[in-house]
Amino acid sequence: MDLMSIKDPSFLKGLNKEQLEELSSDIRRFLIETLSKTGGHIGPNLGVVELTIALHKCFDSPKDKILWDVGHQSYVHKILTGRAGQFDTLRQYQGLCGFPKISESVHDVWETGHSSTSLSAAMGMAIARDVKKEDNYVIPVIGDGALTGGMALEALNHIGHEQKDIIVVLNDNEMSIAPNVGALHNVLGRLRTAGKYKWAKEELDYLLKKIPAVGGKLAATAEKVKDSLKYMLVSGIFFEELGFTYLGPVDGHDYDALFENLAYAKKTKGPVLLHVLTKKGKGYSPAEHDKIGTWHGTGQYKIETGDFIKPVNTPPSWSALVSETVRRLARDDERIVAITPAMPVGSKLEGFASEFPDRMFDVGIAEQHAATMAAGLATQKMKPFLAIYSTFLQRAYDQVLHDISRQNLNVFIGVDRAGLVGADGETHQGVFDVAFLRNLPNMVLMMPKDENEGQHMVYTALKYDDGPITLRFPRGNGYGVSMDEELKQIPIGSWEVLRKGKDAVILTFGTTIPMALEAANRLEKQGISVQVVNARFIKPMDESMLHDIFQAHIPVLTIEEAVLQGGFGSAVLEFAHDHGYHHSFVDRLGIPDRFIEHGSVKELLDEIGLTPENIVVKIKSLMPKKQKRA
Amino acid sequence: MDLMSIKDPSFLKGLNKEQLEELSSDIRRFLIETLSKTGGHIGPNLGVVELTIALHKCFDSPKDKILWDVGHQSYVHKILTGRAGQFDTLRQYQGLCGFPKISESVHDVWETGHSSTSLSAAMGMAIARDVKKEDNYVIPVIGDGALTGGMALEALNHIGHEQKDIIVVLNDNEMSIAPNVGALHNVLGRLRTAGKYKWAKEELDYLLKKIPAVGGKLAATAEKVKDSLKYMLVSGIFFEELGFTYLGPVDGHDYDALFENLAYAKKTKGPVLLHVLTKKGKGYSPAEHDKIGTWHGTGQYKIETGDFIKPVNTPPSWSALVSETVRRLARDDERIVAITPAMPVGSKLEGFASEFPDRMFDVGIAEQHAATMAAGLATQKMKPFLAIYSTFLQRAYDQVLHDISRQNLNVFIGVDRAGLVGADGETHQGVFDVAFLRNLPNMVLMMPKDENEGQHMVYTALKYDDGPITLRFPRGNGYGVSMDEELKQIPIGSWEVLRKGKDAVILTFGTTIPMALEAANRLEKQGISVQVVNARFIKPMDESMLHDIFQAHIPVLTIEEAVLQGGFGSAVLEFAHDHGYHHSFVDRLGIPDRFIEHGSVKELLDEIGLTPENIVVKIKSLMPKKQKRA
Repeated sequence: MDLMSIKDPSFLKGLNKEQLEELSSDIRRFLIETLSKTGGHIGPNLGVVELTIALHKCFDSPKDKILWDVGHQSYVHKILTGRAGQFDTLRQYQGLCGFPKISESVHDVWETGHSSTSLSAAMGMAIARDVKKEDNYVIPVIGDGALTGGMALEALNHIGHEQKDIIVVLNDNEMSIAPNVGALHNVLGRLRTAGKYKWAKEELDYLLKKIPAVGGKLAATAEKVKDSLKYMLVSGIFFEELGFTYLGPVDGHDYDALFENLAYAKKTKGPVLLHVLTKKGKGYSPAEHDKIGTWHGTGQYKIETGDFIKPVNTPPSWSALVSETVRRLARDDERIVAITPAMPVGSKLEGFASEFPDRMFDVGIAEQHAATMAAGLATQKMKPFLAIYSTFLQRAYDQVLHDISRQNLNVFIGVDRAGLVGADGETHQGVFDVAFLRNLPNMVLMMPKDENEGQHMVYTALKYDDGPITLRFPRGNGYGVSMDEELKQIPIGSWEVLRKGKDAVILTFGTTIPMALEAANRLEKQGISVQVVNARFIKPMDESMLHDIFQAHIPVLTIEEAVLQGGFGSAVLEFAHDHGYHHSFVDRLGIPDRFIEHGSVKELLDEIGLTPENIVVKIKSLMPKKQKRA
Repeated sequence: MDLMSIKDPSFLKGLNKEQLEELSSDIRRFLIETLSKTGGHIGPNLGVVELTIALHKCFDSPKDKILWDVGHQSYVHKILTGRAGQFDTLRQYQGLCGFPKISESVHDVWETGHSSTSLSAAMGMAIARDVKKEDNYVIPVIGDGALTGGMALEALNHIGHEQKDIIVVLNDNEMSIAPNVGALHNVLGRLRTAGKYKWAKEELDYLLKKIPAVGGKLAATAEKVKDSLKYMLVSGIFFEELGFTYLGPVDGHDYDALFENLAYAKKTKGPVLLHVLTKKGKGYSPAEHDKIGTWHGTGQYKIETGDFIKPVNTPPSWSALVSETVRRLARDDERIVAITPAMPVGSKLEGFASEFPDRMFDVGIAEQHAATMAAGLATQKMKPFLAIYSTFLQRAYDQVLHDISRQNLNVFIGVDRAGLVGADGETHQGVFDVAFLRNLPNMVLMMPKDENEGQHMVYTALKYDDGPITLRFPRGNGYGVSMDEELKQIPIGSWEVLRKGKDAVILTFGTTIPMALEAANRLEKQGISVQVVNARFIKPMDESMLHDIFQAHIPVLTIEEAVLQGGFGSAVLEFAHDHGYHHSFVDRLGIPDRFIEHGSVKELLDEIGLTPENIVVKIKSLMPKKQKRA
């Protein structure tokens, strides 16, 4: 059918199974074709075609609330709610968002991006419904990976206790982004292999009747029968124990099974957990046979071959630079252990994992546990390297504060995807870390100007032994600079003058250094001589250099790809006033006080004025005042 | 025995059961007597006397690592590790800390305060042991309340998966601080009533033999037998499913049972969960019969009667003021719902709960879930009031950022215990919230000068409908000011001049207002006329007033009982420089860049220089420069 003509999901009510199958094929074809040009989360969306259609056929959105946990699997939902025509703008500047977005559609009732939030939000919506005496359904759809996030487990515990009418759809594809870890994953695995097991409330009767049949399916040794008896009896008991009616497992690509179970779920009082088995990448062979998560989210690809279309000869990614340097150092230092919360591929830790399998820990989506486990390691004089994206580190703020910084433990945190991340948009921009890490006592926070300095900073971090040390680095690839053979320590708190100048000073770090240098070159031609400083340590700052700068009475511009409120520029202001430099022409450029949506990093930088042009303007605006005073 | 003579726990190895019982009595007597004078966490510690002694007898601390989750139940451990002599200084300035403290003893291997961290830390220690090929035991002791914290569940999931040798002691007293909530609590309840059930690995055989006996204990209806069969079969299966060997439940006051089970736990490979039942307040009648948590932590009390010794006629607490005002407004607004993460008593929400039982939600120790559930409520146009302590709000930083602020949802967060909290010390000081909330777009952040303004701010927050709004208020009681009958809205972002002056301006809010006024009075006598402004909105600030102030070219001193890095003073500096006031004499007073230990709030304020004397000095130091420039 013509997907472009879909206005809302009501048309589904009149379709028969054959028509639904046809629609599924059309949607799959559309996704495979469109995403081959735009890129996007192809694997997760191909996996939920039937499930999404079934949900919209069985429920009445937006009266019934369907919440997409994480949200990158909401493309089918977007198509069914009238947004197929915008898919050519997917994840592009001012185009369709890659996640649910309330401003796009009344059918998007909850915005996601970070995982594991949907159950808590659903609980809020269910309470609201009950207080208002309304009668809609609330249906969070959560993956098996997201379920292990602590807040999802907190929510399960509360929902089960309150016995609210919520239908939790567990979209179990046996891998979240990377292959899944965790004991809960094993629970699900046992449920999967235990065979069909429905209507849990009548479980005992039902099962006792079935036992001979089950026994027949398995090798009939006494041991196995005992095991099967035990696991049949406890099928779903993990969730039943938490107060849920467990339904499933259900084949998530079988409409009959989905309709039957959703109908039963709708009739059931209290919370239901419907366990749906789906296949990531279903219907597109390269994605379907992906074992490590390559097809979770992609750029452009060739449909026929499944080859990724990549720029040729790009320098290595920042993630690889950092992780591979850690790996190199781990060869001579047995104390080095790497930790990732479910991002072994994104953090490029595969090499470390294969070389040091006993010193690599993927803890699943569990940032809080990851941070405090690193703290525990550090108490035993180990050297934990916690690889974590800036945006996800937000979830471990208290653990970094209370467990790592407060105990002044020697944990090395590699803050990946720091700064604007581009297409993933506002839920994923790594722009708060400077502000929230800088307010922690004992913390060292640094960012390199290029990958060569980056490798020295990794070395510096792993040689440092006086407390927590954080290296933030951007998403994407390095510049391809030449790399020193020998690693060296960079003195903690030391800055570097990249370009001399006498009329003004730019203090900046990381990704904004090139635009600062470019602006300085332009200003030079206009007769203004600007010093550019690589303020590579955000904390502690280079106080000696700062004294020199403020004593020179020249204007100072700080630039950061991070929020301005409480950020690096504020730290410079604090320094100036704490040391009595009350006549200081300091101005700041950075991320303003609002959330920044998706788009290319270049477009976003333009939007917020982090450009050489704007830096030139800012510097010039500071100059006359200086002259006036001098 | 003479508790003062204890140096370390090694003496326990030689004691027989009779001597241990005597020691238990001595410790109980000591705790009841000492804490009647110092106050402290009496209930939790009386509950773990035998458990702590048993752990130190069966394990070899500090080689074996005993971790006390939350940590306020570590008093017996402190006595057994040579600190009885310091108990008269408990929780006092420079005295014994109320939580484990590495600097106090080699037996304190992990510092706590916030709950649910011990399992993650234990996992880190177990990994370190295995990488280093050492052979010590790791024994986290966690309460049933703390177990529901998301990070503890994340850790269970990971430990079970990795099959590390860790002995988790679940100290189940059926209440954490307040009576417990959550489905997991129900799981434990069923385990408790399922009777003794040991050596879980052989469960099926063992149980099948026992069934007749169990049947006899219960009413012998078919239904009940079926239930008992089911629950016997699944006893501990919740933890077994997560990969743990479940042992218990064990009477935590029975040495024989404890020794038997600890010995078995030591022999067991892989992770063990030993379920120990204890009685909070055991051995002291008033505490033992406490149902709501009054005896969790106390001030001074009369031993004979169990009466609390309290200052007479104190004004109501800030918590009561806020919660009771919310309750009053909830009478006319059905949309108002209250949420607490396990602090219904501390947040004084009992009145609200009894009047609006269907609109009050205690979610257990689950700050992340609490915040996002509030967001979910707000999407449905409800008015959620999230009552949370400042220090615990740290754990919901990402939820406040990603779910509440980013979606600009109308959640009212009551940030209790904001500022220095005193005796609970560095893990509990509520001093980071200003810095970490101020960097969030859309956020309104306010603090009242007194309880009358506080009630108007509650009204303002609940009338506001344009996004998140946060009211921070201190621990303890109000001033007893007279209260307006009629509630009124305070214009968002408006400040108030409390005292006029022409030579300098103090900008401050909340608890530091009185010292600012006092300093201004003293300065008046020295001929310096100081304006004092109630900067009650930390965000957004009163920009109009700020322009006036900076245009007047008089020195500005900001004062905050919060961290200086990125705090309110920084916001004022940012304003000044963003608006071109580059010649501005701004200085800041607040919490310096280090963690502040326990002591009375007054002592701590003295230590960090938040005093009228120091304000006078600061203002005077700013004055000459002003004269020089003028």
